[in-house]
Amino acid sequence: MAVNLAAPDPSSLHPVPGVELGVAMAGVRKPGRTDLLVVRLAPGSAVAGVFTRNRFCAAPVIIARKHLRHPVRALVVNTGNANAGTGSDGLERAMQVCTALAHHLGCEAREVLPFSTGVIMEPLPAERITAALPQALAGDGDWLSAAQAIMTTDTVPKATSRKVRLSKGEVRVTGIAKGAGMIRPDMATMLGFIATDAAVTRRELQPLLERAADRSFNCITVDGDTSTNDSLILIATGKGFAAAKKDLPILEEAITEVARELAQAIVRDAEGATKFVTVRVEQGRSADECRRVAYAIAHSPLVKTAFFASDPNLGRILAAIGNAGIGVSRLSLYLDDVLVAKGGARSPQYREEQGVAAMRKPEFSVRAVLNRGRAQATVWTCDLSFEYVKINAEYRT
Amino acid sequence: MAVNLAAPDPSSLHPVPGVELGVAMAGVRKPGRTDLLVVRLAPGSAVAGVFTRNRFCAAPVIIARKHLRHPVRALVVNTGNANAGTGSDGLERAMQVCTALAHHLGCEAREVLPFSTGVIMEPLPAERITAALPQALAGDGDWLSAAQAIMTTDTVPKATSRKVRLSKGEVRVTGIAKGAGMIRPDMATMLGFIATDAAVTRRELQPLLERAADRSFNCITVDGDTSTNDSLILIATGKGFAAAKKDLPILEEAITEVARELAQAIVRDAEGATKFVTVRVEQGRSADECRRVAYAIAHSPLVKTAFFASDPNLGRILAAIGNAGIGVSRLSLYLDDVLVAKGGARSPQYREEQGVAAMRKPEFSVRAVLNRGRAQATVWTCDLSFEYVKINAEYRT
Repeated sequence: MAVNLAAPDPSSLHPVPGVELGVAMAGVRKPGRTDLLVVRLAPGSAVAGVFTRNRFCAAPVIIARKHLRHPVRALVVNTGNANAGTGSDGLERAMQVCTALAHHLGCEAREVLPFSTGVIMEPLPAERITAALPQALAGDGDWLSAAQAIMTTDTVPKATSRKVRLSKGEVRVTGIAKGAGMIRPDMATMLGFIATDAAVTRRELQPLLERAADRSFNCITVDGDTSTNDSLILIATGKGFAAAKKDLPILEEAITEVARELAQAIVRDAEGATKFVTVRVEQGRSADECRRVAYAIAHSPLVKTAFFASDPNLGRILAAIGNAGIGVSRLSLYLDDVLVAKGGARSPQYREEQGVAAMRKPEFSVRAVLNRGRAQATVWTCDLSFEYVKINAEYRT
Repeated sequence: MAVNLAAPDPSSLHPVPGVELGVAMAGVRKPGRTDLLVVRLAPGSAVAGVFTRNRFCAAPVIIARKHLRHPVRALVVNTGNANAGTGSDGLERAMQVCTALAHHLGCEAREVLPFSTGVIMEPLPAERITAALPQALAGDGDWLSAAQAIMTTDTVPKATSRKVRLSKGEVRVTGIAKGAGMIRPDMATMLGFIATDAAVTRRELQPLLERAADRSFNCITVDGDTSTNDSLILIATGKGFAAAKKDLPILEEAITEVARELAQAIVRDAEGATKFVTVRVEQGRSADECRRVAYAIAHSPLVKTAFFASDPNLGRILAAIGNAGIGVSRLSLYLDDVLVAKGGARSPQYREEQGVAAMRKPEFSVRAVLNRGRAQATVWTCDLSFEYVKINAEYRT
């Protein structure tokens, strides 16, 4: 039961000239479900990527990172199997898929980026994937079917789109993402793909993506567990108008908006989530300090179960802030707009009904004003429910 | 349902000469339950203490830390209310209790150490506590009733005892503790009190306690949430034999054993725990590195739900290690004595039934051999179950 998140209206997802999408049922883990996505890119597309910082990263991440040095002609994404913890055999199987797709497209294997998501430490059934490639290449998929094809424990497909006017004309930005658990991106999320038809150089695209990721996917957490497969890819096909130097900030804002909406969608659809919570830390000494405090709140199992129970257990939030090494004597704490604690104690005006009213809503904010400086940070997170335990206790059965 | 933990046999808990115990029903939070413990110490007792490092520490912690500079004549402990997040009013109320007890005992308020545990950010009902002091002082309590009096969400009273032979004769070491959630001591646990009748100087006692805490309470975690009230107190009444210099290591070992048994009892009785798991990290570059890896495993919600499900989901353990910044290519991972993963991939000999068999047991170990150095660390933890969420979602209702 995702929090304020519905499947996107297909007509709201603008096709991106230069991007062709196709899906198939490869039977990677279970038969009868769409689990393969192939993305073909027009020659000359610029592609940027950011990947998990988990030292135990998956075979496709290692290969995609390497292949990104070359021009990219296609992406191939499977669900059902993460191809992580699979050693050198895992690298070979991922390359087998790249080679097979390259053969179909008449390009080099190094021009294909592979992505996998699903269970860890199982051998990737590469032959089932390669057998399904023709089916994926024959189809004429849209962004919604692409978003559906990459779902695992997601309950809602995640996709969004913008049109943005550059000096020469209008371009499109469309993105999809997946992920519902093992979410605490340290660079990117599980899997996210964003494309624009604007013409942007590879050199401009990579830093743009890194900034956008820092303001979107790097601000969410479900359970603090950074995945082995996190990858976020940004494609600029150049089939639309060129982005002039002065257009870049406008384009970056649209791309960041798309990235942020996708990142928030992951939290809204997080495993077992019943609440979507914005944790904002203000007036800290540095952005790092603010992020540390925000994550201390967002990762505390006691705070997260209190969110679930709509219980304004302020002590747990203050204890989490204290754990981050911050004295609370100058702190002001708000639930939405209600000042609930000040100077390390309950605010005299505060009545508990106000806190309950705020936390009963499916969306609310926790705002900690540290009164130590001028920096700030925002993290989006969710509650910890019975359902999270159920989903993760039963994941492989 | 605690994991392999029964209430201690009262006859196994040796009285400690120089320590008098008394309990009462003060009705701090709810009427009709024993929620007050008074510990009177013989004059000349040496007392050492370690306290939470949470920057948001409770009023009684602030006062106890200060009063420890003076001789200590009594400890007063209430449950039901943590007197944390209560500002200067909280300090006044804690002092009110110290003053009342000092009045009864004919000593100074600064010779009393106060301790509180329970809900955070509620005003301490000091008058109800002071009214119950005569009842506590009239009684002739034993260590088991003392352990029962300090329970909150604990389901089993935690107490243990040793006799240890020093060069001049036998002395006793008896301790009690409480705590079941908000447990990731960063110095001590929620509340622990250990007493010996050996004569030890205050100067010797404090470092001895710090070493013992580092090998016991500082090695456990339930949910990674360090409490605001953690306190561990060690008392040497001197009513028994003096500990000569050469006796100190023997006494320290007995005290550490008591502390470790109490700390492990807290994990066994952790909120919702169905498994007691020893996480051992070996051959790391430093003890700090090993602890970081052990806590990354012990704090991962995904690993903890896999423990709950008896699911040997090795990828989650490797992902947690990778998150701690350690490459897994040289890693060997064991469940009990079974080698399950090597070099970042599944061990060829390993069959999943072996992993399931190990994890189905109520107690098992996860052993990660990093192959990077000679240091090691051990952390004791538990699983994350439905029951943990239930207990913490309903704590205040």
